Amino acid sequence: MPAAARDTRGKIVEAAMELFWLKGYGSTSIADILSRSQVNSGSLYHYFPGKQDLLVAVLEAYRDGIGPMLLEPAWAGVDDPIDRVFALLAKYRELIVSTDCSYGCPIGSLALELHEPDLVVRERLSENFDGWVEAVRECLEEASDRLPRGVDLQATAEFVLTVMEGAVMQARTHRDVAYFDRAVAQLRSYFDMLTAREAVGA
Amino acid sequence: MPAAARDTRGKIVEAAMELFWLKGYGSTSIADILSRSQVNSGSLYHYFPGKQDLLVAVLEAYRDGIGPMLLEPAWAGVDDPIDRVFALLAKYRELIVSTDCSYGCPIGSLALELHEPDLVVRERLSENFDGWVEAVRECLEEASDRLPRGVDLQATAEFVLTVMEGAVMQARTHRDVAYFDRAVAQLRSYFDMLTAREAVGA
Repeated sequence: MPAAARDTRGKIVEAAMELFWLKGYGSTSIADILSRSQVNSGSLYHYFPGKQDLLVAVLEAYRDGIGPMLLEPAWAGVDDPIDRVFALLAKYRELIVSTDCSYGCPIGSLALELHEPDLVVRERLSENFDGWVEAVRECLEEASDRLPRGVDLQATAEFVLTVMEGAVMQARTHRDVAYFDRAVAQLRSYFDMLTAREAVGA
Repeated sequence: MPAAARDTRGKIVEAAMELFWLKGYGSTSIADILSRSQVNSGSLYHYFPGKQDLLVAVLEAYRDGIGPMLLEPAWAGVDDPIDRVFALLAKYRELIVSTDCSYGCPIGSLALELHEPDLVVRERLSENFDGWVEAVRECLEEASDRLPRGVDLQATAEFVLTVMEGAVMQARTHRDVAYFDRAVAQLRSYFDMLTAREAVGA
């Protein structure tokens, strides 16, 4: 794709990404996206014949951004794999604080907002969760000698996502980051007990 | 309020409750509510001058229904307070299974769908979470002799909500109840370690 076309497409996806996050998918109109991206409607319909095509592109951009946009900044200078799990959660804490506690996870919000989404949308949502969980799972694998033998690393990684999503939701609802902090402290306590149990068992 | 008026108002609230849950708040029109409730528009505007008034009434209905609609059925025949916590989660499992894994918690979904909600809406959302957490906290208080001294019962009760919300979201996204089951198993493992620690300490 030539650079100009990539730019146009990229501008549209970026505008849609911001608007879906700020207003929700249902409340964002094509007119909103045209206005924010400053792209003409012919270009938009050329790249994205329907609004759902744009949603799929946004979900792919999030999926492809997990490494560079989320994990790399969260993990800069953090080597210990269990510290990395909590550094990832600390990144969400920053997002909560910097939005006056109105932050919602864009993927989680879309997962609940969209009713009866098409298969392609559901697959892109799942891929986002899978990518996030996979990154946490790799941390847990690296730390597996500190965890009890037989612990289900996949389930534990999914549980970290569970906690992040549930905690973000409560912080947003109460407009208070303390709800997030208390949930993370509970997860820390769980990890402390898991690693202590292994230390006793060893 | 005379019985007929109560019926009319109740029909409207019930229709709105179902539609907000099935379609989301933003996607539900007043016309949808009129059609589903079979109430005329004059009656609807008499009770609910704006759509947000209806949202507030729906959130109050959920809040007032936590006991009779959720806890009482979940806890019928369950006496042990920790079993009650997991019986409450099992109720959500039933909802997930009976909706082919498309279930979304109505409060959690609204909490993420609504962007910049008015204070009255945020308060009603918070009251729903508070009522749910308070019920779990009472279970934990009743079981406090089996939990380590100094454990934060409020934070632990909030954590149960965190897990429910994050687990419902993942089961819905992947359309697979196994995600919910694995999260609940992690929470069970956490509770098992908490109660075992107290048994060792005693």
